[in-house]
Amino acid sequence: MEKGFYLEILHVDKNCGARYGILHTPHGNVEVPMFMPVGTVGSVKTLTPEELYAMHSGVILANTYHLHLRPGEDIVSKAGGIQKFMNYKGPMLTDSGGFQVFSLAKSRDIKEEGVTFKSHLNGDKIFFSPEIVIGIEEKIGADIIMSFDECIPYPATYTYAKDSTERTLRWAARGKAVHQRSDQALFGIVQGGDYKDLRTMCAKELVKMDFDGYSIGGTSIGEPKEKCFEMIDYAIEYLPSDKPRYLMGVGSLDYMLEGIAKGIDMMDCVLPTRIARHGTLMTHNGRVNIKNEKYKEDFSPLDSECDCYTCKNYTKAYLRHLYVSEEQLAQRLLSIHNLRFLISIMEGARVAIKEDRFLQYKDEVLKKYGDKRGF
Amino acid sequence: MEKGFYLEILHVDKNCGARYGILHTPHGNVEVPMFMPVGTVGSVKTLTPEELYAMHSGVILANTYHLHLRPGEDIVSKAGGIQKFMNYKGPMLTDSGGFQVFSLAKSRDIKEEGVTFKSHLNGDKIFFSPEIVIGIEEKIGADIIMSFDECIPYPATYTYAKDSTERTLRWAARGKAVHQRSDQALFGIVQGGDYKDLRTMCAKELVKMDFDGYSIGGTSIGEPKEKCFEMIDYAIEYLPSDKPRYLMGVGSLDYMLEGIAKGIDMMDCVLPTRIARHGTLMTHNGRVNIKNEKYKEDFSPLDSECDCYTCKNYTKAYLRHLYVSEEQLAQRLLSIHNLRFLISIMEGARVAIKEDRFLQYKDEVLKKYGDKRGF
Repeated sequence: MEKGFYLEILHVDKNCGARYGILHTPHGNVEVPMFMPVGTVGSVKTLTPEELYAMHSGVILANTYHLHLRPGEDIVSKAGGIQKFMNYKGPMLTDSGGFQVFSLAKSRDIKEEGVTFKSHLNGDKIFFSPEIVIGIEEKIGADIIMSFDECIPYPATYTYAKDSTERTLRWAARGKAVHQRSDQALFGIVQGGDYKDLRTMCAKELVKMDFDGYSIGGTSIGEPKEKCFEMIDYAIEYLPSDKPRYLMGVGSLDYMLEGIAKGIDMMDCVLPTRIARHGTLMTHNGRVNIKNEKYKEDFSPLDSECDCYTCKNYTKAYLRHLYVSEEQLAQRLLSIHNLRFLISIMEGARVAIKEDRFLQYKDEVLKKYGDKRGF
Repeated sequence: MEKGFYLEILHVDKNCGARYGILHTPHGNVEVPMFMPVGTVGSVKTLTPEELYAMHSGVILANTYHLHLRPGEDIVSKAGGIQKFMNYKGPMLTDSGGFQVFSLAKSRDIKEEGVTFKSHLNGDKIFFSPEIVIGIEEKIGADIIMSFDECIPYPATYTYAKDSTERTLRWAARGKAVHQRSDQALFGIVQGGDYKDLRTMCAKELVKMDFDGYSIGGTSIGEPKEKCFEMIDYAIEYLPSDKPRYLMGVGSLDYMLEGIAKGIDMMDCVLPTRIARHGTLMTHNGRVNIKNEKYKEDFSPLDSECDCYTCKNYTKAYLRHLYVSEEQLAQRLLSIHNLRFLISIMEGARVAIKEDRFLQYKDEVLKKYGDKRGF
């Protein structure tokens, strides 16, 4: 990877591992820690790029597995890459499809060479190997791409987790060996289930391979919260401080803030947009269910502390009306709010880190939010 | 109606009845002839007000029947009226619900006093009289409101049409008698089925009542194209030239352009947004079905002559991908295009009228569009 991609750490909170920095990418610089909205098939559901810029989005995700199925990486490549295809001018990241193969695909068969599975759309047989996945990600053309891994189910036996983690390491090496595009950063993914020695071993081995960044995967898949935090602890101390650290699939406040305290730089999740489409909003004062009858004549904004387009222009009564009437505009306006809410929480976190008061900020945010689920 | 609402006709085409003018309303001035996007339940489906301003929308419609059912006119009134409720800063119009009672509602019972019908949402029994409808429209608070009428089915016997038209005239008088808000223009609706004497009689009688504008209703409900044009002819010569003339429910190119040639100022239809949500686009070079396989690798804009947000920023390949992947963003981007297309056709019409070449413009647009259905 050429110098177009690097992490510049500018401050580490004196009281915890939280770090503030700037991630330099070929499509611009973004501040960390950051929350990355997910644009699964090449659009952050319901939203335009301009709406993402307006909420100060940084990196946006897209999904290798979904884009491979539709429209296919060749079409994305012919369009000039994913940014040109979807008209997003900021940095982008593709996950490797590993998580989707294990969560969405039907009847998978995992071998050393790779995974044979059936498309969740039409049952077509598909084969993904580390080499094939890197090839697809190179065609999609995001700034940051992920190694192909197996997302170990929770719980898993030690033997299963060990075999899988060792294979994921071999897959990481194979993917790295074929990766050619010097304008793309390639991340390794730490697996290991909830076993300390496996997580530590995986982190150390990946670091030896010298990736451009490191993800912590296999988290937020049903394990207890403390387990997730332990999985981070088992690995993070072995990850180099000058490379970005990405906690995958995490979008609830408590996980995000705890991750940041431990030294995580990047997080993503479909949660804020998915729950928004179902009428559930995250606000500075806790969870709001917009369907609730009590908002019928509530002409105040969703979140009086929020500066998003939705909160600046619409009332709860109108949002409830749109939602109850099944108007698509509801899902748009609610998605805008939830994403902007998390992005603004990250902005607050960055300021707090620079002032060495991140732990206090975390406690304040969580206390005010109130809901123990964190979303 | 105070002087806040009036039509200023600035030019009539020398070769036909087409007229160019400015409609003055309490929420701003708009040029006619114009196409009015429909925001049935208080949102033009999928779109924000800012997107409507960007496409140079003028008057926006909302629907009395739908808003009465949800959220109820009292809530709209408490919000400060429909414009404040939905945050649209331009002029608005509400239809009377007459069309919806006859097209959507279940088991209606029409009496002199009014209509008893069942809600299409939950079967609740509802009673609409001219007085009740005007009361609802006053609470909703649009700039332009419609009299309560019966939309006569096509075809209808002479006896049915005559009885209905005479009742619609009595309803118009009753509605006008109770209408109080001086900041709202009230329009009468010409009915009469496809019977010349009834249409003419209805127009003359409405004009005697001195409405602020006149609609031609009962059109575009399944009658042959020539019948629709005749229905306009039967009435329009009796309508005063200094009052706006509104052809209801018309959104295909041929009907719109023919209406303008006959002296129509305003038109509305859900057609452009409804067909957009089903992947059908109106372009300067004819109809496009975005689902078509041939657009899979077509990286050109939907309509190279269009200046809309969608055509300036996205390719057919991307729009097709979003549509096929059932992403809501597809319906947004396609709705933006269809509405802007019709609005830009209106802009061209206004220029042509001022230059006395509207008939030529009409022929050119329709020839280039090609599709005889006009949409």
